Formats: sequence, C-alpha cells, structure tokens
Amino acid sequence: MNQIVDVFKIPCGGPADLRAAKALLQSGALRAQDIVAVMGKTEGNGCVNDFTRELASRAWCDLLAPLLGTTPEAVHARVALVMSGGTEGVLSPHFTVFARRASTTDAPRTDKRLAIGIAFTREFKPEELGRRAQVNATAEAVTQAMRDAGIDDAGDVHFVQIKCPLLTAQKIDEALQRGAPPVTHDTYESMGASRGASALGVAVALGEIDTAQVQDEDIRSDWSLYSSVASTSAGIELDHNVIIVMGMSAQADSDYLIAHGVMRDAIDVAGVRRCLREDFGIDPDTQSEALRQRVVNVLAKAEAAPDGKVRGARHTMLNDSDINSTRHARAAVGAALASVLGDTALYVSGGAEHQGPAGGGPFALILRA
Amino acid sequence: MNQIVDVFKIPCGGPADLRAAKALLQSGALRAQDIVAVMGKTEGNGCVNDFTRELASRAWCDLLAPLLGTTPEAVHARVALVMSGGTEGVLSPHFTVFARRASTTDAPRTDKRLAIGIAFTREFKPEELGRRAQVNATAEAVTQAMRDAGIDDAGDVHFVQIKCPLLTAQKIDEALQRGAPPVTHDTYESMGASRGASALGVAVALGEIDTAQVQDEDIRSDWSLYSSVASTSAGIELDHNVIIVMGMSAQADSDYLIAHGVMRDAIDVAGVRRCLREDFGIDPDTQSEALRQRVVNVLAKAEAAPDGKVRGARHTMLNDSDINSTRHARAAVGAALASVLGDTALYVSGGAEHQGPAGGGPFALILRA
Amino acid sequence: MNQIVDVFKIPCGGPADLRAAKALLQSGALRAQDIVAVMGKTEGNGCVNDFTRELASRAWCDLLAPLLGTTPEAVHARVALVMSGGTEGVLSPHFTVFARRASTTDAPRTDKRLAIGIAFTREFKPEELGRRAQVNATAEAVTQAMRDAGIDDAGDVHFVQIKCPLLTAQKIDEALQRGAPPVTHDTYESMGASRGASALGVAVALGEIDTAQVQDEDIRSDWSLYSSVASTSAGIELDHNVIIVMGMSAQADSDYLIAHGVMRDAIDVAGVRRCLREDFGIDPDTQSEALRQRVVNVLAKAEAAPDGKVRGARHTMLNDSDINSTRHARAAVGAALASVLGDTALYVSGGAEHQGPAGGGPFALILRA
Amino acid sequence: MNQIVDVFKIPCGGPADLRAAKALLQSGALRAQDIVAVMGKTEGNGCVNDFTRELASRAWCDLLAPLLGTTPEAVHARVALVMSGGTEGVLSPHFTVFARRASTTDAPRTDKRLAIGIAFTREFKPEELGRRAQVNATAEAVTQAMRDAGIDDAGDVHFVQIKCPLLTAQKIDEALQRGAPPVTHDTYESMGASRGASALGVAVALGEIDTAQVQDEDIRSDWSLYSSVASTSAGIELDHNVIIVMGMSAQADSDYLIAHGVMRDAIDVAGVRRCLREDFGIDPDTQSEALRQRVVNVLAKAEAAPDGKVRGARHTMLNDSDINSTRHARAAVGAALASVLGDTALYVSGGAEHQGPAGGGPFALILRA
Repeated sequence: MNQIVDVFKIPCGGPADLRAAKALLQSGALRAQDIVAVMGKTEGNGCVNDFTRELASRAWCDLLAPLLGTTPEAVHARVALVMSGGTEGVLSPHFTVFARRASTTDAPRTDKRLAIGIAFTREFKPEELGRRAQVNATAEAVTQAMRDAGIDDAGDVHFVQIKCPLLTAQKIDEALQRGAPPVTHDTYESMGASRGASALGVAVALGEIDTAQVQDEDIRSDWSLYSSVASTSAGIELDHNVIIVMGMSAQADSDYLIAHGVMRDAIDVAGVRRCLREDFGIDPDTQSEALRQRVVNVLAKAEAAPDGKVRGARHTMLNDSDINSTRHARAAVGAALASVLGDTALYVSGGAEHQGPAGGGPFALILRA
Repeated sequence: MNQIVDVFKIPCGGPADLRAAKALLQSGALRAQDIVAVMGKTEGNGCVNDFTRELASRAWCDLLAPLLGTTPEAVHARVALVMSGGTEGVLSPHFTVFARRASTTDAPRTDKRLAIGIAFTREFKPEELGRRAQVNATAEAVTQAMRDAGIDDAGDVHFVQIKCPLLTAQKIDEALQRGAPPVTHDTYESMGASRGASALGVAVALGEIDTAQVQDEDIRSDWSLYSSVASTSAGIELDHNVIIVMGMSAQADSDYLIAHGVMRDAIDVAGVRRCLREDFGIDPDTQSEALRQRVVNVLAKAEAAPDGKVRGARHTMLNDSDINSTRHARAAVGAALASVLGDTALYVSGGAEHQGPAGGGPFALILRA
Repeated sequence: MNQIVDVFKIPCGGPADLRAAKALLQSGALRAQDIVAVMGKTEGNGCVNDFTRELASRAWCDLLAPLLGTTPEAVHARVALVMSGGTEGVLSPHFTVFARRASTTDAPRTDKRLAIGIAFTREFKPEELGRRAQVNATAEAVTQAMRDAGIDDAGDVHFVQIKCPLLTAQKIDEALQRGAPPVTHDTYESMGASRGASALGVAVALGEIDTAQVQDEDIRSDWSLYSSVASTSAGIELDHNVIIVMGMSAQADSDYLIAHGVMRDAIDVAGVRRCLREDFGIDPDTQSEALRQRVVNVLAKAEAAPDGKVRGARHTMLNDSDINSTRHARAAVGAALASVLGDTALYVSGGAEHQGPAGGGPFALILRA
Repeated sequence: MNQIVDVFKIPCGGPADLRAAKALLQSGALRAQDIVAVMGKTEGNGCVNDFTRELASRAWCDLLAPLLGTTPEAVHARVALVMSGGTEGVLSPHFTVFARRASTTDAPRTDKRLAIGIAFTREFKPEELGRRAQVNATAEAVTQAMRDAGIDDAGDVHFVQIKCPLLTAQKIDEALQRGAPPVTHDTYESMGASRGASALGVAVALGEIDTAQVQDEDIRSDWSLYSSVASTSAGIELDHNVIIVMGMSAQADSDYLIAHGVMRDAIDVAGVRRCLREDFGIDPDTQSEALRQRVVNVLAKAEAAPDGKVRGARHTMLNDSDINSTRHARAAVGAALASVLGDTALYVSGGAEHQGPAGGGPFALILRA
C-alpha cells in the first residue's frame, strides 16, 4: 500500500506544554499509532546544557506511552523524537508532528507526494563521535531510512534530519581513562564534531561524496565536502543517531509536498523566494494569504560563516564569548526566513557543519498540495 | 550658504580600529573639521557593561583631537559621537561618518537633499532619567538641532538619533542617599527608561504628540505614544543627551538622500522594500548592483515585542535570562534587513521604546542621489 | 507520637537523574510515603527560563507516583518539591530529601531535635505577586507549617524554605489586559519581588516584624525589614507558595540537629565557622573528617549587595548584563561556604531580598546528632 | 645599587578610570618613570571579546605617555601592562602598580625582600601559539626577566606573570590561507592553548620540568607537567608575550615581601591560611586588622577542574554553554580567597592550564614587611 503522511505544526507555551497536541489526539485528527517523528524547537540554548530538549522528549513520551500501550522509555524506539534547542530572536517554540498511515491503494501516482522514513544507528562510544565510525554508521542508517520511506532515488530525498550525541565532561573523562582520546576535550565543540560527521554520513549515503573521500581529519576542516539536504542536531539526551528521511515518492498519497534548496549564507533568502515562486507558484510579496494557508514549515540550518565574514564584511559571532555562535546564527537565519514567510514558528537549527556550503545551509519547504 | 553633507561608511576590525578612518582623512576625501557626527556600531553587548562604546569614542577623540587642534575631551563638544553597542547575528561593526561643509551657493534647490544638525542637552541627575524632565529637555534640544540642520518643517525630518545616559549601581545609590529615588533600581531597565523618555522628547518636538499627553507614568507604559523617526540609544559614557537630526532640505546641496518608514514588527521588511522601489526606484530582488552602489546605510531600531508575540506567535526574548532581549532583537532585525539589502554593516540599534509602534521601530535609508 | 526526621543528600548526573534516589528507595532506607520535602539544586540558570527545575520536579513525581499509588500531578500536593536552579562555580547538583515518620513514643525529650512541617498557600494572581497579598497569605501558611512541624515557639524555627511563583511575559500581558498592572513588567525582576514578599511573610509569621510595618512600597526597598531564617526561591512552574518549616523540637526523636546564623555579606564565613565550633563542637580547620561525617548540608541564601559594594569595595554584579547577579552571588557564596565545609554539594540559593541583611543572607546547618 | 620595589593597589570605577592613579602621581608618592608593571583586573568577560583590557591599557598609556615624554604606543615597551579581564562574583576591579627605583646602597641584605624584573618575547605567528615555539621563546624571556630582577636562584622566584596572545577568527583564517594550521580553530580554546604553552615556558626556565619533556601534544593534555609559580593570561590586544618575574632578593631593599603556595583545588584555602600564619605571622580568624594593614594583594589562578569534579563531586562549569568555565572559576576562587582575606580587590585570573595542579593553581601573597 502507498503511504499517506500528515504534518501538524503545534504551538507550545513551554517545552513540556503539549495541550495542543493532546487536543489534536482527542479530536481524532491525529492518531498516536501513526506518529513516526516529532521535530521540536524548544526554548533552551541549543548547546551542551540545554535540558529543554530532554524535558520536551519526556513530555512526548509520557503523552504517547499510554496511547501506544507501552512505557515512556519504549516510545523512543517507535517515534523519532528530534528536539532542537534554541529559539533565538523571533523564532517561536513549536512541534512539527509527522504521522504516516497506509493509503487505500498501492497504485503509483503520476505526481509525487511527501514520504517519510526513519532509522536508528547503534550507540556510539565517546571516541567514535566526530570520526569516520560515526560517518559510516550514519550512512548505513540513512539508506535504511530511505527504504522505510519508499524512496529509491537519492534525487527524491529533500531533507535528512539527524539527532546525534555530544560529549559531556563525564564522557570525555571516561574515554580518556580507557586510553581512547575523544576528538575534542571541549563539550561545546563536540556538538559540531558530531553534527559534521553525521552530515557527511548523509552525503555518503546519497552519493554526494564518496566514502573514500572522508578521512578523520577532513571532518570540520574540509568544508568542500557537504550534503545539500542534511540537517543534524546534537543533544545530551542520546547515545546513538536518529535519522528521519523526507522526500517525494510516487508511492505516497499525502496531501503535502516538499522541496529543498540551499542558502549560500545566513542572509540568502533568494533561494527560498524562488522555491516559493517556481516550485509552488506563490509570490511571497503579494500572496501573504497563500503563504499562510499553504506553508506548513521550513526546515533550515544556520551557522556562523567559519571564515568570519558574511558578504565580505566581518561578523563577530565566532569571537563572542558571551553568546555561542550557533545562537547568533539561529537568530539571524530565523529572522531572515521569517521576514519572507511571515511566520516565526520555523524549524531553524544551529550548527551547519558539512550541511550546505560553509556559512550557509540547506532548507526544505513543506507545503500543502 | 547651503550645506553639503557627505556620508562615509567605514569598516573596523575592533572598536578602536580606525585605520580606515585615518586613510580617509589622509587622502583628503574627509576633513576633520567637517565631521559633525559619527554613528558607530561596536561589538559589545549593547547593555550596561558595554565598554566598547567608550573605547570607540576614545579612539575617535584621540584621532580627531590633534587634527582639530584641541584635547580629546573637547572633541565631544564638537562632534556628536553616538556609539551603539551590539552587532549580534550577521551585523558587522562599522562607523558612519557625517561631514558637513558650506556649499558654493545659498540658492534654494527645487529638489531637497540630505541635511544634518546636532545639539546637546544639559547633564541629567539620576532621578531625572526616564521622566518628564528628560522628555522636555530633549524636546528643546531637538528643536535646536533642527535649526542647526536648516530644517523648518517637521515633515522634512526623517531621523533623529539620540544618545542618552543610563543608571549604574553607583548612580542609583547616590540618588537614593540624597532621598531622590530614580525611576528604577535595575541598571539594565534604566536603559529602556532613558531611551523611552528621549524618544518621547522627539515626538513632542516634532508635534507627533502633545507635551501635555506625557506623564511620568506613561513612559514605558502607554505604547500608543511614539515617534516615527526617533532612534535612541543609552550608554554608560555620558550624562546628557546628544541629538542628531537628519532630514531633507532645499538648502542642502548634498549628493545624498534620506527617506524613512516604519517596521510594524521585527520581521516587517515590506516597508523597506517599498521605500527602495518607490522612493529610490530600486528593485531589491533584481538590482543588487544598484543596491550595492547607492545604499549607504539603513538606520533602524529593534525591540522585542512587549506583548510577547510576533505575528501572533509567542517569542521567548523577554523570558530569556541568559541573553537580554535587546540582543535578540538586534540579531533578528539586523538579519531581516540584511537579507533585503545584501549588506550586513547596518546601523541597527536595540530598545525601541516609544520609537515606532510596540514591537516595531522606525527605519531610515540613506542613499546616494 | 513524636516525629522522626531523616535527611538524605543524593547526588545526580543531571536534573532528571534519580538513580541514587531509586537505589535508596529500593534498599528500604527511604520509604516513599515518608517523604515530606525534596530540596534540589539543579544546573539551570536559576532565572526565568530555567526549565531544569520543572524537569527535576517531573522526574520526582514520575518516580514517586507509582510508589504512592497516585498520579504524578497529585504528588505535588503531598510532597513539597523545591527545586532551586543554579550551581554556578563549584556548586554540585544534588537533592536533599526530608522524610518524616512517627516515633515509638510521644514523651517530650530533654534535648531538642530536627522537626519539619509543610504548607501551601492558595494560587496567586499575577498582580498579587510582590505585594502585601503575597506577604499575608505566606504568613498564614508559615504558621500552618509550624503547627505541622510541632513547633510552637518561633525561636525554635531555624529555616523556612519557600518556593514562590514569578511573572512571565504571558502572565504580565494577561494581567495588563484585565487592567490589573503587576508590580513589574520585567520577568527577571519579578523573581526578586516574589521572593521579597514571601520572605516578609516569614518575618511577619515569626514576629520578626509587624504586619503593619509592611506596605507595598517597602517590598524590595526598605532593606531594614527582613527575616533571619527565610529562604525563598522563585520558579516558573507553580502559581502558589510552597512552605517548608525546619526547626528544633522536644517532640522530635530525629538523629539530626539544625542551627542557623546570618552571613553579613557574601564572604562572611565567620558565623559558619563559629556555628560549627560552638553549636556542634567541630573545628573546621583541623577536623575535616568530623565535617565530612556529620555535616549533611548547609542551606544558604546569596545576593549581590544592592549598594554595589562588598566590604567597601565596588562589585560589578549588578552592572553585568551578560550574567545575572543572582548567578554571580551563588558562585561566590557557594565557594566561600565550600571552602569552609570541604563539600560542594551545598544548597545555596540566589536572591536574598528581605532574607537576612542587605547583601548577606541566612544560613542553616543540618548535622548528624 | 640594590632595587627598591613599591607596590600600590588602586581602585577604579571602570576600566578607564585612573583618577586614583592620577592622584598618586600628582602627590609624588608614585613616579611615572619608576613604574615597571601594572597588573589590572578589569570588569570584562576575560574571554575573547573582552575589550576592557584594551580600554584599560589605552588609558594607562594615555596617562603615562606625557609624563614619560613619549607616545602612548611607546609606553608598552617600557611598562609591562597586564590586564586580566573578569571580576565575577565579589571580585573588585583594581590595578596593582609595581614601581622600581634604585636604593642608596648595593650592600646585600641578610633578609630578602621583594624584587621584580620584566621581559618581552618576539611576536608570535598564529600557528606558533599553544606549541613548542611559544614554550621555548617564553622560557628564554623568563630567564631574561630573572636577570632584570636580580634573582639568580629559581627558588627565589615566587610568581611569574605572563600576558600572552590569543587567536581571533581573522588570525585563524590568515594562518589557514598560508597553509599553516593553528593549534585550534576555536578562539576561546586558543586562550587556553596560549596560556598553557606560556606556563610550560616558565616551568622550563625554572627547572620545574625539562624542555625535552614537552612535546606539542602534551600541551593542554599532560597535566602532570606544570609550574607552581606561573600565572598566564591571554588577551586580544598583543601578539607577543609580556613577562613579569617577582621574587625575593638580598639585593632588594623594598618594604614588601612575597611568598607563594598552591591551591590544590578551587576551594583549597588551607595553604593561604597557613602561609599567612607561618610566613607572615598573621592569624586570619582573629587578626583582621593586621590582614587589612599588611596584605597588599594575592595573585592567584583559577580554573574548572578538567575532570569535572571538585572533591569528588560533579561540577557543571565545563558543561555550561551560557557562561564560560573561566568565569565560573574566577567567581569561585575569588570568593574563597576573599572569605579568608576580608578583601575583594584580589588579582584572580582565569585559566590555569599547566599552572599548578589540574583544577588548582598557584597563589602568591604580597605583604608589607
């Protein structure tokens, strides 16, 4: 049977506020057993000590466990919960829920529609993070998730969201005592290493780069290696990678579409404007009502340009010891996208190492068909 | 004689890096005795303990004093030095220098051009900040600065930039000991109070509101009272208000134009796009080269919407105890404007109390004629 | 019957890490139904957007609910969960669990031992926080908690811990729309207002000051009004005050003692050293083993001196717009106390408005008898 | 001739407030030409973008230049200006000025007194920082500064203060483009690398370790290698190392003494208490007046224990992405020392890589004889 994907964007009053989700479930519009993924933006710092991600995940597990007849812990194995911290600037905390159910037919369509698949890697040792071990395990899992989504052609993949682990002071210490030095001793830096290796895993799986091209020392160093559809997000609350593949499939009867593009830098909204016009026929300047009714969300990555410049002018994000650069970058990219879409509940996630070109990042637009 | 205003935008590698300014002065393109105002964006936090403003002011005084044959301290009385801290997100530190010289004629033009004037208030006592005393003294000084600019009609004023004092713990304590309680005991909050009262002074001077309308308790409370052209910025380094009035005058032969508008909220760039198209004939989507060659700078204010919402969706700027809301707001508005103008060296200043509608703020575009 | 209070200090690897608590419960050393209060230090910012408090509370409710045969929500009505955010500097996250059970006798002792009692106020409206309404309701609840503790004499009360609400942007907006202006529009500042009013409620209940002495305008202004045993802590996760009274009672057969004193300023550890020597016979310089074995915890309050000085020298905590002053103060007081006690898992809570003298705060030592 | 060193501790109201210094100079108690070093604590974040150091240095150069008959820039070559940012917690901003003049005799004393010497290294390339090149150049300069101080025996050296460069985004980029990868791509992390290499330079010079023991990969990794008297501080405002050696010499007729010790961890004040009692005959508990009159300053280093623990309990300084660990550590060590000395204007500097044992750091006490 074909799949049907439904997408719900839900506001919240705090990381654990699931009143709107509860209402949806009670109304019957959303069925717990159909939920395959939840992508949340929570109001933490998005860095090492961001516990809003854990709080939100916990609230979702507590909500879904009785409905699925399982324990809160077991929910993690059924639903890809990806909580991305950081709603700097105008960004508004919210959850995007992806539900998948069987269609009434298995006839391939002439047009393609939104399809989704998920997969998980094994747990990583601290010293594997940010290195080839993580790249390769991720690549395998992406291939698995494509199969789960019913997508054969890498060209039909428009977004691969990954949640990956980070190093804490404890993990670093434990590894060092075993004589297995991790890739960095800095917890904040480890987030970038894990995100970068995971993104390269996507690039390998989709044939954007060859696995032989990636050596340990290229990770976070050779920015010419990247994926145009990877979005990776590190969190303290897990030890393995969670993968969500989204794309278009003739075996999907969803009422939703997805398209993607690349921002060359943090203020490059030309691609988004073009995507709206060319892929979906919406003029963002004059058709604000169409924007409001059709656009569900944009999924995008943000980072401070590693060369210290945007359009040739110096930025200060990497020299700011009071605010981490990922927070600056989310605030900037979030506002730039919001100024086009007229909506601030956007999924903008920080740290785009090997996700799109240096200083830029991939974006995907999900719209009603 | 008519006046001619020249505008120079100068990048810097740090708050005290004036190499580019020195080169301009040495080349003869800029003469020290013509400089009437410098508006800087420096890379501090823009809040109470932002010493980058003082450092930049000091560097400018040290640079100009020998050229003007005076002491560094005396430069402050000749040049309006307005340093606004905070280059969050993509914003790039820079200085905008306004130089004014006599034209060769005093014949009024048929078209109007950029004109500028400055003035200073007396020093304020701590307990006057954020209250009517500051409003009224500011209104008087604005009128004086209009006269200095050769602008009679309030409708020709497009931007009034003010630098105003704030309360430090020391000032608060001193006032309390004299039995003169200041408007707040919180240093960060005092910045908003001082900015708000100064902006209402502009509104009074320009006839946007009537002086009788403003009571002490309206300041930072009745957001229906505001100026559409005021931009006020608080700093630890002064005890009086510095006023810069910019507008259009038939008695000005400058090669520059200025126009203004209002952002209704932090992502409202429609007005800027319209202003570019209608006032200056530039399509920001297709004429990036014209943008680059003609736009000198945008001067804009940013603030977190006090009702906690942008376009109906919750924002978290006012509940964030790690990053002050002015920093969030500058990052957002800066990126939204940069995404239109293709330039990140923009003058976006935080805290728009009584400057434009609540959550929004005024903007002014300066272009080559 | 007399009461027996047991006190357990439990380390944690994160706000929701209750492995050590689980082990204690499984061992039988601690029974769920005996727990009356949990005082936690969690690793958030201790300010408005500190969700580690909610996460820890949630984890405790989830742990205790099945053991108490009730729902997680209902645990709040049985156990006083006071989570204080902020473990700056050397402070180590941990939970202190207070369990109370009936003794085998009701004969009054000749010496007094640790006793505990709890109570709750009604929910407060936003506009009641930081005002007399909160003072009076708190005073009533303190009296109730003393009764619950079996303490008649105010002189036997050594510590009153209170958890109180704060104002969020949403609450402020809601109140304003009802025409009921809250005491402040600043969320961070509302924490101090709520803490201050709650502390004055303790002072009123214990006869330290007279209720007629406290007017709305004295709160956070007349620092001569204070309680020497109040410790109040504001959090986003509740709308009422939770009160825990600790003291000494002849009707208690506990193996624990409590004593209190006052720090005059943030570095005043002389009182703690004296209390150890005089009340408990321990020389902190030479008897580190006795310290380690007998001291369970110190409960203390920290604040930045509102006059901007410590021992006559300027401090910068109140002018720092990057780190809130409560975070600075906890780091300082925590380290000063840790340097005496040789232990960093201490309950040091920030914001000592009307709790001890200005710039200082009360402390209580809990020791094994 | 013997040397006489005078030491002055001067409070300030801001990084550029030298009113107290001016008064001293005008009174004749301090002569500009005698000043060899100024060690300041300024109220910045002490990290990469701390411009309070540059502001203070600039103010000192502006003050001294006319008195020395030279330019502000040239003052740097005559006076070792070491500005250490960060006065977290109770720490109070101040300057310690060291002046050196010839005695009236060259007869060696029977007792030793405070002596001081300074030296400078060459400028470093970005890729030399945090590597052996910096270690070796520093070791040479320390030997030179000992000679300048008239100290032959390494055992008479009690403190070596070093100011060293850091990497900015610009420097990193420049080095990468030359194909010379710097030791790290993270600006904040580069501060630790530069401090660590500089400290190992001291250890080599004083024979604490052998130069052959130090390989590039040991820097910030093998914590068993350290100096017990090094204190190094990184700043954005210089490209070479500045070295100040302090010790005791029979060729010095100063009215001041210096002694040193080591804090094993951030709360270990036992050594300071012992040093006061044994080296100087002052009981810190009972002789507060002697403390006040004789102690000029303590010079100390602070760092977050790299294993994530203090006295066996977890600390959160290294996992905190809102406040850098050096800020936490200064707040903690500053308050612990202040609680012993009864004074908050202390020179506590952050980042003790290879300075004292891991998690601890050296301290030196300067007292009136």
